[in-house]
Amino acid sequence: MCEFFSFHLSAESNRARAGKLLTPHGEIQTPVFMPVGTAASVKAVDADDLKTLGSQIILGNTYHLYLRPGAAVIREAGGLARFTGWMGPTLTDSGGFQVFSLRDLRRVAEEGVHFRSNIDGSPHLFTPESTIDIERDLGADIIMPLDVCVEYPTTHLEADRGERLTCRWAERARSHWENDKQKQALFGIIQGSVYPDLRSRAAESIMALDFPGHAIGGLSVGEPKAEMWPILDQLDTLLPPQKPRYLMGVGTPADIIRAIGYGIDMFDCVMPTRNARNGTVFTVDGRMIIKSARYTRDFRPLTEDCNCLCCQNYSRSYLRHLLNVGEIAGLRLLTIHNLHFYLTTVAAAREAIIADRFAEFSRGFLERYDEGEFDVA
Amino acid sequence: MCEFFSFHLSAESNRARAGKLLTPHGEIQTPVFMPVGTAASVKAVDADDLKTLGSQIILGNTYHLYLRPGAAVIREAGGLARFTGWMGPTLTDSGGFQVFSLRDLRRVAEEGVHFRSNIDGSPHLFTPESTIDIERDLGADIIMPLDVCVEYPTTHLEADRGERLTCRWAERARSHWENDKQKQALFGIIQGSVYPDLRSRAAESIMALDFPGHAIGGLSVGEPKAEMWPILDQLDTLLPPQKPRYLMGVGTPADIIRAIGYGIDMFDCVMPTRNARNGTVFTVDGRMIIKSARYTRDFRPLTEDCNCLCCQNYSRSYLRHLLNVGEIAGLRLLTIHNLHFYLTTVAAAREAIIADRFAEFSRGFLERYDEGEFDVA
Repeated sequence: MCEFFSFHLSAESNRARAGKLLTPHGEIQTPVFMPVGTAASVKAVDADDLKTLGSQIILGNTYHLYLRPGAAVIREAGGLARFTGWMGPTLTDSGGFQVFSLRDLRRVAEEGVHFRSNIDGSPHLFTPESTIDIERDLGADIIMPLDVCVEYPTTHLEADRGERLTCRWAERARSHWENDKQKQALFGIIQGSVYPDLRSRAAESIMALDFPGHAIGGLSVGEPKAEMWPILDQLDTLLPPQKPRYLMGVGTPADIIRAIGYGIDMFDCVMPTRNARNGTVFTVDGRMIIKSARYTRDFRPLTEDCNCLCCQNYSRSYLRHLLNVGEIAGLRLLTIHNLHFYLTTVAAAREAIIADRFAEFSRGFLERYDEGEFDVA
Repeated sequence: MCEFFSFHLSAESNRARAGKLLTPHGEIQTPVFMPVGTAASVKAVDADDLKTLGSQIILGNTYHLYLRPGAAVIREAGGLARFTGWMGPTLTDSGGFQVFSLRDLRRVAEEGVHFRSNIDGSPHLFTPESTIDIERDLGADIIMPLDVCVEYPTTHLEADRGERLTCRWAERARSHWENDKQKQALFGIIQGSVYPDLRSRAAESIMALDFPGHAIGGLSVGEPKAEMWPILDQLDTLLPPQKPRYLMGVGTPADIIRAIGYGIDMFDCVMPTRNARNGTVFTVDGRMIIKSARYTRDFRPLTEDCNCLCCQNYSRSYLRHLLNVGEIAGLRLLTIHNLHFYLTTVAAAREAIIADRFAEFSRGFLERYDEGEFDVA
């Protein structure tokens, strides 16, 4: 269907999958973690850092880019990959998630969602068609249609309404995309909150539209973890194996490893970058709060075996100091470490899948990794 | 006098000098610009960036480091070079400049200067001896004695008193340094505001103490530029040529080129780093205000011939966007460019001195460089 986009499964281990995505800006080995570059910048690092880290694909947020610098500027720059200097594959969301999180500043209608800018209060309307147009300007390799993001908890009635509207919007988005198809793959988003009947209906409707890939939305929005796994379990049996599966906005390192075990191929999350900026460091044992006084005279690296720029050059004592006095360099160094941890963890999962020992890898990882207070992502 | 520290003049061109400083942590080609790493971090960049930029020596501020993380932590880390991961030569000031800028929070006495921390209001006393002790813990290659930093404008009487106290403190600092000399070179600081008689007397007193190097303090503190050059002119004739000369806290790129013409060897200034963080970019033509709307669709690099990481990878349009939306990456990228500009400009001056064409270089630079509103540094 898309000559410029394809997905090939290369290995499976239990239900975990290793594959390869081909996009106009390059090849992506899956499972893959996608760093989030909200406003055309993965916060605190630059494109050169992202390349050094071995990132494969970067996200951009349509809502933010639409407001600043504006989609036309990015189109004139030659698209997000060129504008940011990243040059590799990119993915844009539809802006829906950000607009829905505006709460008092937005109103949902059949045509789309009306909202006011969080920057200057100006009124705007996102429709399934207009977001495709904006994403066309942004020029990412993978684009997402406008969807209705319901909160958690929500009633079955609300979730039902949201899911039906999401599907009607998906159909409109797909037609609009098809009418002037650029080298961009549009994924379908499956909503339905924590209700299995709605998830099942959503999967059927979205599959019927034959998108190049499937995304699972509306999870990791505050529900207990115990509610997420049955949905992934259910969708794994419904979704066609030959198309890539993207679990939106998830999650902790342990969440990602578990979700890979349910056949998910793609992940994005602000957790490694956002946590870095408040001094939270991810390691195989769980999280370290680097600002703690216990690290004042600890001259070891964050983690002994890590080969990231941060661990190769700086001590816990120095990083603690940088965070405590508010030095910008500290934000970048911890971001580099956390992204490195996420990227190498997912790369290790991929290797385990290829060697058909994912169950063992997953068990080992989850036994050692202490989730701590991160039960709700 | 110091077997671990030496200065060799290798070339002169008119009054400009090219030389070599040997320190325990490495060799420094002069004239040299020294990036300022106030709190053990050159703001927005890391040690790896500083190496890539070809920095030769980094400053630390004793006042800040004494308060956080504390001198003992840095001593235990093995000194500032190891603590920061920079590993190369470092210089610390005495903390005097910061303490004097506290104004209402400090009181000068014969013994030293009493002050309250700007962080928690706790009371402290810096004496000529205690600052040497702190700097010994910090472990820089070049250290500065406590001096009295008078404001501009000041009366002759105030400047006279400040200069005399600076000289008495210099003598005490020198004795204390001599009694337990580590591999650190203590420089003498010449004060005296804009008064030639005081500068002359200060130079005589400081020279009599036979320090390994000389620093010129109390300039670039708000006086018109026209008042600075006669002082440098005068001191060039008084100071012994075989010792390095450090002009503290100066200045704009044009100031530095002019001061090199008066025989200055060493410079430090927060201008390239601080200005980067508010979006001001230095170029051979003067300053660019990158946040300006004129750069919205300007996809050229900051400067065409620059080989810094920033100019090699990013456009004015992208950098403008990063600064306008407050992305951290933008602060680092502009800092890298500005430091690169300062470092390469001083390196070019050195080459011109060695080729004995400094006058021509200086004239060419100053004719092209537009100082704009930066008359007072």
